[in-house]
Amino acid sequence: MAKAIILNHRPIGMATLEDFKIIDFELEKPKDGELKLKTIYISVDPYLRGRMNLAKSYIPPFELGKPIESGMIAQVEESLNEEYKQGDYVTGILPWQEHIISDGKGLMKIDPDLAPLSAYLGVLGLTGITAYLGLLEIGKPKEGETLLVSGAAGAVGSIVGQIGKIKGCHVVGIAGSDEKVLMLEERFGYDKVINYKTSKDLSQEIGKYCSNGVDVYFDNVGGVISDAALDHINKFARISLCGNISLYNEKELPTGPRIQIKLLKKSALMQGFIVFDFKNKYSEAIEELSKWLKNGDLVYEETIVNGFENTPEAFIGLFEGKNKGKMLVKV
Amino acid sequence: MAKAIILNHRPIGMATLEDFKIIDFELEKPKDGELKLKTIYISVDPYLRGRMNLAKSYIPPFELGKPIESGMIAQVEESLNEEYKQGDYVTGILPWQEHIISDGKGLMKIDPDLAPLSAYLGVLGLTGITAYLGLLEIGKPKEGETLLVSGAAGAVGSIVGQIGKIKGCHVVGIAGSDEKVLMLEERFGYDKVINYKTSKDLSQEIGKYCSNGVDVYFDNVGGVISDAALDHINKFARISLCGNISLYNEKELPTGPRIQIKLLKKSALMQGFIVFDFKNKYSEAIEELSKWLKNGDLVYEETIVNGFENTPEAFIGLFEGKNKGKMLVKV
Repeated sequence: MAKAIILNHRPIGMATLEDFKIIDFELEKPKDGELKLKTIYISVDPYLRGRMNLAKSYIPPFELGKPIESGMIAQVEESLNEEYKQGDYVTGILPWQEHIISDGKGLMKIDPDLAPLSAYLGVLGLTGITAYLGLLEIGKPKEGETLLVSGAAGAVGSIVGQIGKIKGCHVVGIAGSDEKVLMLEERFGYDKVINYKTSKDLSQEIGKYCSNGVDVYFDNVGGVISDAALDHINKFARISLCGNISLYNEKELPTGPRIQIKLLKKSALMQGFIVFDFKNKYSEAIEELSKWLKNGDLVYEETIVNGFENTPEAFIGLFEGKNKGKMLVKV
Repeated sequence: MAKAIILNHRPIGMATLEDFKIIDFELEKPKDGELKLKTIYISVDPYLRGRMNLAKSYIPPFELGKPIESGMIAQVEESLNEEYKQGDYVTGILPWQEHIISDGKGLMKIDPDLAPLSAYLGVLGLTGITAYLGLLEIGKPKEGETLLVSGAAGAVGSIVGQIGKIKGCHVVGIAGSDEKVLMLEERFGYDKVINYKTSKDLSQEIGKYCSNGVDVYFDNVGGVISDAALDHINKFARISLCGNISLYNEKELPTGPRIQIKLLKKSALMQGFIVFDFKNKYSEAIEELSKWLKNGDLVYEETIVNGFENTPEAFIGLFEGKNKGKMLVKV
């Protein structure tokens, strides 16, 4: 018997523990060409919330009664596939199960001696690649420019700021607790981070710390935080839309000030992306990120929750700001 | 004595005739290096409304008590400047006066044998260049794609659609009267034009006529028309923000559905521009536009109002949809 976490109800608004269910199921034996995997780490990510809705989006919705899937790290327990042997570590998009039977497709072997296993779900995984390509392909930061990052303490945001510094930018972040502010300023090299929860006037504070205006805005959150950011964009600003965590749990599309006129007045560019858009640039991203990780230019933070059964809680915690850096579950 | 039209009050909301005033003034004699010009055509353009506000924008506001300025065509009556001779025709951004003293800076000589004089304020002027560069530099339409144009019957929109056809797109427009619809479909080669004023469900109609979705949206209007357009964008859509006529007369920034999530889900790009951003591409644009004009691929429409004193009324008429194609005043 093995445990799986399935989607029990489609969440309405904020996801709750009742939307998930832990079930026991009979794990079949691997057939020829297949692997039996033992799960080590599960990545929980804000974008999974979108897949819980029955809506058209960039990736198909999860099915009710089936396991949630996300990025995971696992170890090969049994292999009937000649490309993998027992003991190998792999990463891929896998179902939330303690044990998994896989045909090996879509998996990638990872080397635990090069970096800690969990880094392959973070700075060297899709998270790091998202930060790298979303910033450099859309934001195109130039030396001396000002980069503003919302959701700065999140998995992607904490890497974006560091890449901004590597590229010679003045980097300002927006985060949701004094503890996160401290971490970003002391550990991740942000020049200044604003706590939007205690800020009396966010727009005025952004203006103060981005005193030359905002050239690149890397947006993880949307909503009123972005309204404030858009007040300060410079001519020819670039806005990279990476996420919109403020809306993922909303039942209806909220309204806000119309932004087209702001983009028009500044000849600004706003572009949405999902990391899969840039598949042909992954190897460039991983190469650069590994180099920076090795030479110490890039550090990372993880929040690790222990216990397979706590995965739904870890996921919900993302929307309550409970993570610093990448949120992972250790099984 | 000569007549000038000055900004008498800064309009609040929609501009009214009382915001302008016709005055008589003493025209000095041209000094060495100067020209005396006689105004022939005055271009009235929606963007001038923005310059009537005391707000920071891409170009400085008009001064109270001073003449409005816009694109104009004039003839040289007297010249003390060796680059121009009596009888030459010129175009440039000039003050709303019947006669003008100019030092010649910023003027461009135009040839009345190559095209009708008024074309130099329209299809071969900033209007045509705006359509060409806004569509091709940002929208980047590819053969077989669908191009949607709002404000399609306006000066820019009527040219954008034709360039879209030249580039092999399926071209759908949105306009505000059945007469405009007919003109765009019969004269300008639009595949289909929707009358938003009589449409019961604009979004549904856009979906019907853009049955493969919208790859390029050329936006002249913003507001609820753009909300409907954004419902139908395809993955990797490009949205060129050229104007926002729905807002120019608003006293406060209106609210609407937040759009970042729509751009994010489609990895779409939205970019504002003003034609001056692309100064280094003007000559390319004029060369192509002239070629298409000559071979008949490009036709144009003008609405000509007679009489210098009717310039404010012509300007206000832009916001009431009174123009088909480029709106001009013949002095």
